[in-house]
Amino acid sequence: MEISGTSIIGFSSAPQSDTSIKAVDPSTGLEIEPSFYNAESEIVEQAATLASQAFLVYSKKSSHERASFLNEIATQIESIGAALVTRAMQETGLPEGRIKGETGRTTGQLRLFASLIEDGSWTQARIETALPDRSPLPRPDIRSMSRPLGPVVVFAASNFPLAFSTAGGDTASALASGCPVIVKAHSSHPGTAELIARAVQKAAKITGMPDGVFSLLFGGGRTVGSALVAHPAIKAVGFTGSTAGGTALMEVAAKRPEPIPVYAEMGSVNPIVLLPEAVAHNGDAIAAGLHISATMGVGQFCTNPGVVCIKKDASGDALVDHFVEKMKDTAAQVMLNPTIHRAYKDALSKMQANKSVTTLVSGSAGDNDSPCLGTAAVFEASASSFLKDESLSHEIFGPGTTLVRWENKEDLLAILESLQGQLTGTIHASGTDWENHGEILEILERKVGRIVYNSFPTGVEVCHSMVHGGPFPATSDGRSTSVGTHAISRFTRLIAYQDSPQSLLPDELKDGNPLRIVRLENGKTVEATI
Amino acid sequence: MEISGTSIIGFSSAPQSDTSIKAVDPSTGLEIEPSFYNAESEIVEQAATLASQAFLVYSKKSSHERASFLNEIATQIESIGAALVTRAMQETGLPEGRIKGETGRTTGQLRLFASLIEDGSWTQARIETALPDRSPLPRPDIRSMSRPLGPVVVFAASNFPLAFSTAGGDTASALASGCPVIVKAHSSHPGTAELIARAVQKAAKITGMPDGVFSLLFGGGRTVGSALVAHPAIKAVGFTGSTAGGTALMEVAAKRPEPIPVYAEMGSVNPIVLLPEAVAHNGDAIAAGLHISATMGVGQFCTNPGVVCIKKDASGDALVDHFVEKMKDTAAQVMLNPTIHRAYKDALSKMQANKSVTTLVSGSAGDNDSPCLGTAAVFEASASSFLKDESLSHEIFGPGTTLVRWENKEDLLAILESLQGQLTGTIHASGTDWENHGEILEILERKVGRIVYNSFPTGVEVCHSMVHGGPFPATSDGRSTSVGTHAISRFTRLIAYQDSPQSLLPDELKDGNPLRIVRLENGKTVEATI
Repeated sequence: MEISGTSIIGFSSAPQSDTSIKAVDPSTGLEIEPSFYNAESEIVEQAATLASQAFLVYSKKSSHERASFLNEIATQIESIGAALVTRAMQETGLPEGRIKGETGRTTGQLRLFASLIEDGSWTQARIETALPDRSPLPRPDIRSMSRPLGPVVVFAASNFPLAFSTAGGDTASALASGCPVIVKAHSSHPGTAELIARAVQKAAKITGMPDGVFSLLFGGGRTVGSALVAHPAIKAVGFTGSTAGGTALMEVAAKRPEPIPVYAEMGSVNPIVLLPEAVAHNGDAIAAGLHISATMGVGQFCTNPGVVCIKKDASGDALVDHFVEKMKDTAAQVMLNPTIHRAYKDALSKMQANKSVTTLVSGSAGDNDSPCLGTAAVFEASASSFLKDESLSHEIFGPGTTLVRWENKEDLLAILESLQGQLTGTIHASGTDWENHGEILEILERKVGRIVYNSFPTGVEVCHSMVHGGPFPATSDGRSTSVGTHAISRFTRLIAYQDSPQSLLPDELKDGNPLRIVRLENGKTVEATI
Repeated sequence: MEISGTSIIGFSSAPQSDTSIKAVDPSTGLEIEPSFYNAESEIVEQAATLASQAFLVYSKKSSHERASFLNEIATQIESIGAALVTRAMQETGLPEGRIKGETGRTTGQLRLFASLIEDGSWTQARIETALPDRSPLPRPDIRSMSRPLGPVVVFAASNFPLAFSTAGGDTASALASGCPVIVKAHSSHPGTAELIARAVQKAAKITGMPDGVFSLLFGGGRTVGSALVAHPAIKAVGFTGSTAGGTALMEVAAKRPEPIPVYAEMGSVNPIVLLPEAVAHNGDAIAAGLHISATMGVGQFCTNPGVVCIKKDASGDALVDHFVEKMKDTAAQVMLNPTIHRAYKDALSKMQANKSVTTLVSGSAGDNDSPCLGTAAVFEASASSFLKDESLSHEIFGPGTTLVRWENKEDLLAILESLQGQLTGTIHASGTDWENHGEILEILERKVGRIVYNSFPTGVEVCHSMVHGGPFPATSDGRSTSVGTHAISRFTRLIAYQDSPQSLLPDELKDGNPLRIVRLENGKTVEATI
């Protein structure tokens, strides 16, 4: 499949424009052909207007029809084959295994959402039937369910060219709910974006979806993205990326004449608390697991463990030594793009220059072979240094880990209390450690979206119960999740129908429960089975 | 029960401060004793800090304990008796029947939320058990549920001194979810607020709830409210009131270092579409119903029908005549407070001065007997006038209705399309009217939270399926509702527990489903029955 470099507006292609960007191969620093043309303002307008028109048709498609569309997208993505793997590897520096695994995750997500909506139970259908004789006032017939919000803009993530990008989790959940999607491609991997977008376009045609149910816009910088978020046709935003990028979009969305929800996943330092008995009994295994978690994907995961709290005692020292050894032995690997690589190097330099921090592994060695090589780094700070210097709790995006050495429980609790909202919080505990567990859990419950026991935060399972969210600034809206089936509710709102004729009700709310879904009828959960 | 006029901080009373306000009896324009002292900034600080501490205890109370608290609040409110009715009538001008009815609605809401949480199914408990042998990677054990956000600030509404105020829907849903509440009393009915707050305080003591689970602060103007919303301990806001008030709070909340959700219900013109055959066959009944809906509670309901679209034909003219006659015959009634009365008069004056509007009932007669009498008013505008002048779609808070006379379907659709987000949209249809129904429904589905057929929007049933919400500016967040049990989800966020020891899990997520709740286990809805 040839890559054209022009934005995709529904079933059409946008013309080339005056300005363009090229992707860069992070392993060589060289530009990759072809050029990708920035979407000009009339292209934004066209895509938004078409999405708005498509919404009228798409929001009325049956769950079954939408599910076919999602399944067909998965099939079409699989049929791209080697061209996708080659291009994605070239644009991101990620190895073949990762790209193939991520493709599987992406198609898996699409199919999971398809199966979710095949069963309409996700719509929270609720019915209260009329009580005409109730005193003092009769009760009307009231039925409500979740309905799609309208066109959604999805921003592709740098670190997941497939699973959190063009047809990633945000797109899958928005399309599943009945919302058309306009993806703003990430300028790091525009070719991958186009390949996937053409698969989505093809699937939309094959399954009879309306023109405009999906578009993909290219654009360097923030102009195209901001214009999309500000457009009155857009009703919600999904974003995975930096705090600066996410908060900028939150501001644009809040300033609109009609403010809209922004679901921005902006990262986290994912604190890990290692309690003494776990460290004493299991230190080597913890060090090995932490090393894998900290360096996996060159540390470029939202759930990468950035801050690890270890008691200052002999077992703790031994664990640190073991971890440091493994981090030193870790080969430098290509990071996603020059910007991320530069930011990583800058963050390391700042840590190295910080007098209250000890650099255990410098991360700077071997960086000269390739323009974007990232080397694992380890820093150590005392609890009091960490508490005095807020910058030590900032995310280092890459394989850099800060070990905070606490001496007593008060310090440990203060460290955790000092942290902002996080995606995850992890506890390693054993034996008597559990006695101190209550207060730690209490703090984490206020700060994080997922609490992990005796394991590591990387590896976010895509399932019904997953929560990949957390209080600000981990996300813009900690009430939801961007991974797992709960994500569909982000793009819906409740609508009630009062005394509606049966024929005008959505099938989910009709008498007799024709879709055989789980719903609440007069206060009772009813699970209809065929 | 004596009214002290001092703010209530948990189980204590704040001292008197230097500034105070008094309530005004709208039927006489005279001030009512005693003075209510403005909460100074240290009182805001105290209440917020105490709520934060209370959250640690309260969020861990079992559903059963929280339910007892809610039920006891209802009992305590009922035991206030005549003092409450007298004071509320005096402060709001509302008749005895309404105050008694609203008390019943308030205690009913509290008991409904108590029964909701007695059954923990509302928490969206979901479980995926571990698959240690899954290939290529094992699946961990993941369980998630809704957990309370933290202290919530509730702003009392002018127009519902009980059901949307101190222990109204927002307070009931926040307390039910496990969040402490700080109520900012409405300065129109502070005495009513104090009586109810003391009932809540007593219930908290009786049922062993922590000090600070509930506070009530007095304060004229916006200082106290803004300080509460800006306070870092506060995690969400519930508000019912004006667009100006609601959007000001949205701005404060968005500008915090940690932005928080604001659920502001800001009103609506609740368009009613009368289709020709319904008007021809049923005009008199529609006119009579519309009259009741438009004048009920002196038109001071969020769901008051402000814009009614009637075809310009003979049947439409007859309906208008009939409606006008009834509105003219409607006795002036005392409005809630001088500010609302003044705003109503100003809105009528603007409409009367508008050359594109015909004043059918002026609303100004008989206003001199009492300072706050509001008289029903009816205005008429053509579709083209309505479409040209956006001010005609602004809410007139009070018994004023604007009739928009359309001549063809295109006009009608354009009128509806021109409207902003609304709480409700109503359609009266009969026979061939249904043929045109699709396009109208399509527009309303994008604009409103509740679609009402052949009835009227006033009278919001408190039940599981109710949606009292709608796109901005009807509310700040159209994804939820402020009436009915869905409202509880506003004050929660999802938390996942990965590989948690059984003993540390909330009961809702434990193996064996000890609470016997409806939950999702490995993708299957399980309803455990004892």
